[in-house]
Amino acid sequence: MECQDYGLTRNTEKINLNLNPLQRGGVLPVEARKALYEFSDGYSVCDYCSGRLDEISKPMIKDFLEDLALFVNTDHARTVHGAREGKFAVMHALCKPGDTIVIDGNAHYTTHVAAERAGLNMVEVPNNEYPNYEITPEGYKEVLDDLNDQGEEVSLALLTHVDGNYGNLSDASSIGKITHNAGVPLLLNCAYSMGRLPIDAKALNADFVVGSGHKSMAASGPIGVLGLKEEWADILLKKSHRHGVKELEMLGCTSRGAPIATLMASLPFVIERIKNWDNEVNDTREFVKHMEKIEGIVQLGVKPTKHDLIRLNTLIFDEIAAKHPRRGFFLYEELKKRNIVGIKRGQTKWFKCSLYGFNSEQKGYILNSFMEIVDKYQSNLD
Amino acid sequence: MECQDYGLTRNTEKINLNLNPLQRGGVLPVEARKALYEFSDGYSVCDYCSGRLDEISKPMIKDFLEDLALFVNTDHARTVHGAREGKFAVMHALCKPGDTIVIDGNAHYTTHVAAERAGLNMVEVPNNEYPNYEITPEGYKEVLDDLNDQGEEVSLALLTHVDGNYGNLSDASSIGKITHNAGVPLLLNCAYSMGRLPIDAKALNADFVVGSGHKSMAASGPIGVLGLKEEWADILLKKSHRHGVKELEMLGCTSRGAPIATLMASLPFVIERIKNWDNEVNDTREFVKHMEKIEGIVQLGVKPTKHDLIRLNTLIFDEIAAKHPRRGFFLYEELKKRNIVGIKRGQTKWFKCSLYGFNSEQKGYILNSFMEIVDKYQSNLD
Repeated sequence: MECQDYGLTRNTEKINLNLNPLQRGGVLPVEARKALYEFSDGYSVCDYCSGRLDEISKPMIKDFLEDLALFVNTDHARTVHGAREGKFAVMHALCKPGDTIVIDGNAHYTTHVAAERAGLNMVEVPNNEYPNYEITPEGYKEVLDDLNDQGEEVSLALLTHVDGNYGNLSDASSIGKITHNAGVPLLLNCAYSMGRLPIDAKALNADFVVGSGHKSMAASGPIGVLGLKEEWADILLKKSHRHGVKELEMLGCTSRGAPIATLMASLPFVIERIKNWDNEVNDTREFVKHMEKIEGIVQLGVKPTKHDLIRLNTLIFDEIAAKHPRRGFFLYEELKKRNIVGIKRGQTKWFKCSLYGFNSEQKGYILNSFMEIVDKYQSNLD
Repeated sequence: MECQDYGLTRNTEKINLNLNPLQRGGVLPVEARKALYEFSDGYSVCDYCSGRLDEISKPMIKDFLEDLALFVNTDHARTVHGAREGKFAVMHALCKPGDTIVIDGNAHYTTHVAAERAGLNMVEVPNNEYPNYEITPEGYKEVLDDLNDQGEEVSLALLTHVDGNYGNLSDASSIGKITHNAGVPLLLNCAYSMGRLPIDAKALNADFVVGSGHKSMAASGPIGVLGLKEEWADILLKKSHRHGVKELEMLGCTSRGAPIATLMASLPFVIERIKNWDNEVNDTREFVKHMEKIEGIVQLGVKPTKHDLIRLNTLIFDEIAAKHPRRGFFLYEELKKRNIVGIKRGQTKWFKCSLYGFNSEQKGYILNSFMEIVDKYQSNLD
């Protein structure tokens, strides 16, 4: 048989500024690129394995996992294939099919899919709707109280630390206190926070945290982080009856190759970059402030934002699209001409974006580009 | 906090010949190394995603998966994180906790761990013991008949196509016929075969096949292949109620990054190399023939071997070790001096090795090195 040329080149990041929030936190520093090169081959991290990936001492995976647990303040840390695989592992270990869990109304689709795969019944804590779409501690209390009144046992509560629609940073610490009062452990989905901003799982009252290497920890995908408190180790890190050293939920070993090498190489870089978090948030607020000066652009979600992912309603671009010969494609094309990508083709009513990790010159260029595009077409609207 | 230097360099393959069977099939060709570089960043394959990894057209993941299905002759193919994750997905989708499955006595530990994680009861078809350790169709028939007599329902049968202890190539086609006669679908674990030798899932009577990118398909880990017949698509590729395009057992998407780019880049290389399979097997037989001329060296498993992974009993090295000042370490150290690695430190009674993918000069050098080591010490034994 003959294969096609699958088009395995990627210029996106080489020649463009990419505003896709999904990808802003997963750009590799040079150290991680080197690690990827060193550990290219399959099973390359396994040269000195004596049965457990998480105990390999060359490269120093064992020490790295101890550092990772320190970094997020959990008693144990493991790598998994991604945040979703970490969520599924927690659900699968703690719950039986048919169990009820409580999740937030801003949860990522992978939370739903993981719970559905585990056969769980999800009860949602709704957000407070337009314009803030915020998840509140009161919401969790109400839902847990209601379920308690109905005599419904709850096996697990899950909270999205920062959601992918509005970039809202939830009050995990208060919500964790509420779920603990109800006797329910808390799983905190930190896919959009771990690696961008400091995470202290214990201060956040989280029994479990999951993070995403490829989303927010400057690692090559797929890789995630699963952190847990000691009290859950017996359940979540339960070992095989037949193969005494192998952890069941990890299927023995997880990251058998290059991605873990990149996560390891990136940790020092990530530890440094989270110190700059307040500046990233301030820059995002500045960007929003300037964008909102354009009539018809409004940021949704909590204001001022506490994260780099922002969602903007962009009525002005929708009005321009209505009169533009390229219709909805004009915005994508105007941005592309300026080497800016990451906003979906055809989308003009609203979009999500992030300027995370760009330097100030790049951030200024991006803002100016939006201004220029508005200026170019605004007169046509009158 | 401060990180240590985790030792993220790897010279194993740069300066040594690695005989570890686990790693012989996962060495990347240059095209895959380039792909790894292009798709280093997290979520880098997702630039043009509209909701499903397996339907992305740039890079051409969709076309690649169609080619992959052709390559192993299944109706559908997906990438998973590895063979073990593929096995778990099949077990989890087809079986309920408490169900009984039939597996072979040569199964990899990950088969046991996946089944244990899924809460399944495993009934084993034993191998025929020393010296062949072969799994026979009669064995499957007997176990299935017995279970039938006991009124025990069997949800799934699993067979290890080539096992990792003896390199025995099992008669999947006959065993598949037997399980089908008993109304039981067959999952074939091709971790040591897919990518090394031609796989025709339909001819092998397999309902499901799993393969390992990092073990046998010249890909960077972790990545695996899951192939299935159309009749199982509704169950195994079942979609989420809530997110209609997302496949539950895949948790929406699996290989979110670099490993899939390497698997894609390697497919043409792998298609070519399997054409050379008979030569690889002949070279292995030649190697065994010469090694067995040394008194005290015997190949276990089916003879002549039908695979590159071989297990040798090496009494001679154990005798040398008994008198050597470095005891059991002497063999590892003598090989290392000759830039040969992959045989466990301290092991002399027996070892597994593979010469897969080396050129004839390298294969000759490896054989000569063993001869040299025997010659050097044999006189001491008398």
